[in-house]
Formats: sequence, structure tokens, C-alpha cells
Amino acid sequence: LQCYLPDNSAEIGADRRRPAVIVCPGGAYLFTSDREGEQVALRFAAQGYHAFVLRYSTSFGRQRHVDFTVDLPEDGASVYPKPLFDLAKAMLTIRGNAEQWLVDTDKIAVCGFSAGGHLAASLGVHWDGQHLRDKFGVDGAMFKPNALVLGYAATDFTLKKMMEQPANPDHIRLKAFAQLAMFGAAEPALEQLQAASPAQFVSSGTPPAFIWHTADDQVVDVTNALAFASAMAAQQVPFELHVFESGLHGLSLCDESTAGDARFINPDCGVWVDLAMKWLRRRFATAKEM
Amino acid sequence: LQCYLPDNSAEIGADRRRPAVIVCPGGAYLFTSDREGEQVALRFAAQGYHAFVLRYSTSFGRQRHVDFTVDLPEDGASVYPKPLFDLAKAMLTIRGNAEQWLVDTDKIAVCGFSAGGHLAASLGVHWDGQHLRDKFGVDGAMFKPNALVLGYAATDFTLKKMMEQPANPDHIRLKAFAQLAMFGAAEPALEQLQAASPAQFVSSGTPPAFIWHTADDQVVDVTNALAFASAMAAQQVPFELHVFESGLHGLSLCDESTAGDARFINPDCGVWVDLAMKWLRRRFATAKEM
Repeated sequence: LQCYLPDNSAEIGADRRRPAVIVCPGGAYLFTSDREGEQVALRFAAQGYHAFVLRYSTSFGRQRHVDFTVDLPEDGASVYPKPLFDLAKAMLTIRGNAEQWLVDTDKIAVCGFSAGGHLAASLGVHWDGQHLRDKFGVDGAMFKPNALVLGYAATDFTLKKMMEQPANPDHIRLKAFAQLAMFGAAEPALEQLQAASPAQFVSSGTPPAFIWHTADDQVVDVTNALAFASAMAAQQVPFELHVFESGLHGLSLCDESTAGDARFINPDCGVWVDLAMKWLRRRFATAKEM
Repeated sequence: LQCYLPDNSAEIGADRRRPAVIVCPGGAYLFTSDREGEQVALRFAAQGYHAFVLRYSTSFGRQRHVDFTVDLPEDGASVYPKPLFDLAKAMLTIRGNAEQWLVDTDKIAVCGFSAGGHLAASLGVHWDGQHLRDKFGVDGAMFKPNALVLGYAATDFTLKKMMEQPANPDHIRLKAFAQLAMFGAAEPALEQLQAASPAQFVSSGTPPAFIWHTADDQVVDVTNALAFASAMAAQQVPFELHVFESGLHGLSLCDESTAGDARFINPDCGVWVDLAMKWLRRRFATAKEM
């Protein structure tokens, strides 16, 4: 857990409690992408948030890039649900230090991208789950995020497009690695896919969410965003959804600050950042009523 | 058909062909709302479009407001599909006058709100339908819009939320009137509902669409936008979708220019206008490749 804690000062209010955000980078549960970490946290910190980047457990451990040309590991134990425990523990850490760090504990958001979005959504639907309570021996409410921000997140592995083999050979290989990381099997059973699909567990207790995606995402199909939004609508949980017509998977902030090359610079999609900041500000302004 | 045709001049290009947009106001097929007409057309005209407002056939004729306290009319002939013929005819009129008005006939959008959005979407999925070809005796391609802009549009009458009775007594009465206008019956059969649901007819021939809605719309449920977007995604037709967390049904441009009272001023949702203008500009910039 990497922390970016803006200083308080007498000039802006010595006792000001700040909202917080935990950023969960993507990386298919194989690694955590630097492109969806520090720069995103700094963008939030620049808006007055206490910002955290969670380097959750992944199957390639602390490696930050994965070489997909290596041999596919054999079927074995999945890294899941370790990442969910890591995120739950991060919530406890922030709540445990709230007095010292001056965190407003009614205003803790989780912002995730791709697999990190899956992780954020999973905490959003399972914060009151028995397995978390058993593991940490505390009330489920301690784990509940107050808002979710989901970027091109995987939310339902049973969707038609998620069950199909990808067209691109690189994506086939990525998917095989990712399935191993997630399920411990290159060909998981339908029950495993369902159990790992947060869209299927949305309830009235799920926190409000800001969801964004691109319609032509070739790695995590846009139907993931539509499925999660539909589940939120069915449960009458507040949400906002922005699907942009075109953009690669993994755009992060869509500008130079996170782009590895020019393909990841996309001003049309980049409006999500401002929309999300405004949405969070509105939500957190009225958190008392929630 | 009300026309707003910006002048050409030697200074900005004497022979410049302009894109065009047909604005279809909402009004539940009972009337056509002034709040979703001229001001919307002027917004497009201000961006260099030839803009048109279509006052299509409605069951209260040229009345522009409906008094819902009058007796419910008996079951009878629906006004539908007259509005679809009206819109098809508007396409022919614009294409027929393209030389004189200097319209770029590869760049004709239809922008509709609520029932007008249903109408726009219906032309989007049925432009090549036998009934239009029979009625006008021309090739279906003459009716095809190049892009759709759908605001809080009804797209699927078979959705759970669309089949339920509304909670609000005013909405129950509005729905009864609207069903009569649309189907000629206060309680239409499932087959009628399906046949009138454009989301169920999306194909690879459907033009690209910009779709927006509010998540808490109490008149046309947000699942209408999600269903249409899902159908577009399944057919791999380009689309953009913006669902804002909160806003009344009928926001139109969301600002003073179209608000009857303060409840219809909503800057958070008002960003749709700029997003739609930019989306259309991008689409029409690449229309040749379509």
C-alpha cells in the first residue's frame, strides 16, 4: 500500500478530514500495472484526497511486467482470493489510521482498472461476506467502500464475449495466463466463472459506482460495463456510466501522464477523469444522506 | 418540418455542403414538445448544421400540450406508424432538396428525445423495411440516417420496468394515454410491444448512435438505454453511451434555453450536448470510411 497524504495546514484548516481513494491497478492478476497506479493516485491527491495505490497479490508477485512468451504455468492454486483480502486489509489500515491521517471515513472510494476494477467491484458486492468477516474478525461494515470507480473492469466472466476465445493471438495467451491467475485453471468451470463475477452479486448494499469503458475494448468486452450497470439499475443503486465509442483497453488517464506510447493518448475518452472527479465530489458532498 | 438553414457565403465557402440533423421532440406520441424542438435545432445550426424540427403525427394533433385530466379516449386506431412515415418523408425531403440546400447527404443525423428518440431509433432499425419501401416506392437507403442521437429514448417496451405500472399516479395516466397513442389499446399484447421495440431489431445495418439517459429517470427507465447499447455492442455497431446519475425525464438541453422551470436545469447532465456535438463531428469527419 503506497500512500500519498497531502499535508494539512492552518491556512486550509488544521483539522480538515479528507476523503480517501484506494487505486487498484490492472494487470490481469498477473502483475499490477505502473500505468494505473501512482499517476492516478496523484490526480486524486491533487484534488485533495488521501490517495493510496494497492499493490495487491498477483501470480507474478512483485514483477511489474509479464513476459507472455514464457511457458504457461501448470494448473494450480489461484492467486484469488488473496487480492480481495489485500484490499479488505487496506480498508482496515485506512480506517485504523483515520484519526492520525485525518481521513473522513464516510468518504473512502475504491478506483480500479481492468482486473483492479474487478477487484474494486468484488469488494463492492462482497464487503459483508462471511469469508472477510472470518478472516479479519471484524464487522463487514469496516470493509465497505463508500463509492466505486470502475475503469474497463471485468465484472462478469459468464458473458458471451467473455466466454469466447479472443480473435487476437496475443489476447488468447493473455487470457490463458489470466484464467490461471484467477481460477488456478486455464479452463475454469461455469460455477467458478459465476462465483467470480461481481455483476451477479450486486445488491441494494452495493455502494454507488462510476463506470466507464470503451465500446470497442478488445480485451474486456464493453458488455461487462453494461451488465454491471444493469444490475445496479435493477437494484436501484445510484450509478453513472460512460461508454466512449473508441479506445484501447488500458487507457488509464488517457493522457501523457500514463501513456506508454501514443496509442494510449485519447482526449475523447480522457473526459472520464473530470466526470469522475465531479461525480465523486457530488456523492461525497451528500454522503451524510446516504 | 421546420427548417433552420444557415446561409452560405463566399467568406466561409460558397459551395460548402453542410451536415444535417432532424430533431424529433418527445411527447409520448400525444404531442410534440416545444422544449425539445427549436432550441435543440438552433444548437445544431449554431454548429454549422442544417437543422430541422419534425412535428410528426401525434394523437392530439397539432396541440402542443396535453391535458391529462380529460377522459381517456376509447381503444381505437393508433397514431403509429404515421410518425415513422413522417420521419421517412422528412429524409426524402432533405435528400430531394440536397442540391438546392447544399446538404451533405452522407451526413444526416436524427436526434430524438423520449418518444422522438423511439422514433429516431425506429427509423435507425427499420430504414430498409418493406413497409417504407412500399409506401414511398423508393430504395430503403434513401431513408437511412447516418447517425442517431437518442435522449432518454424508449427503445424496448418489453423490459421489466416498462411492463410494470408506474409508482406515480400521474405517470400511470400518462402511460395509459401513451399506450393508446402508440398501440391503439390501453393494454397492448406482448407481440405489439415487441414489434414496437427498436432495441429488438438492431442489426449490423443500424447507424452508429450516441445514447444518453439518467439512471433515475422515472418515466422511461434507464434499462432502455442499456438494452439499446447492448444490442449495438452485440452487432458491433459503433455507439457512445452516457448515463448520468440523476436527472428528471425530459431534460432536453438541461439549461435555461429549454427549461420550463428550475428542475430542468441540470449542468451535470448538460455535458451531453458537448459530448454529442464532438461525437457527431468525429463520426462525420470519417463518414467516407463508414
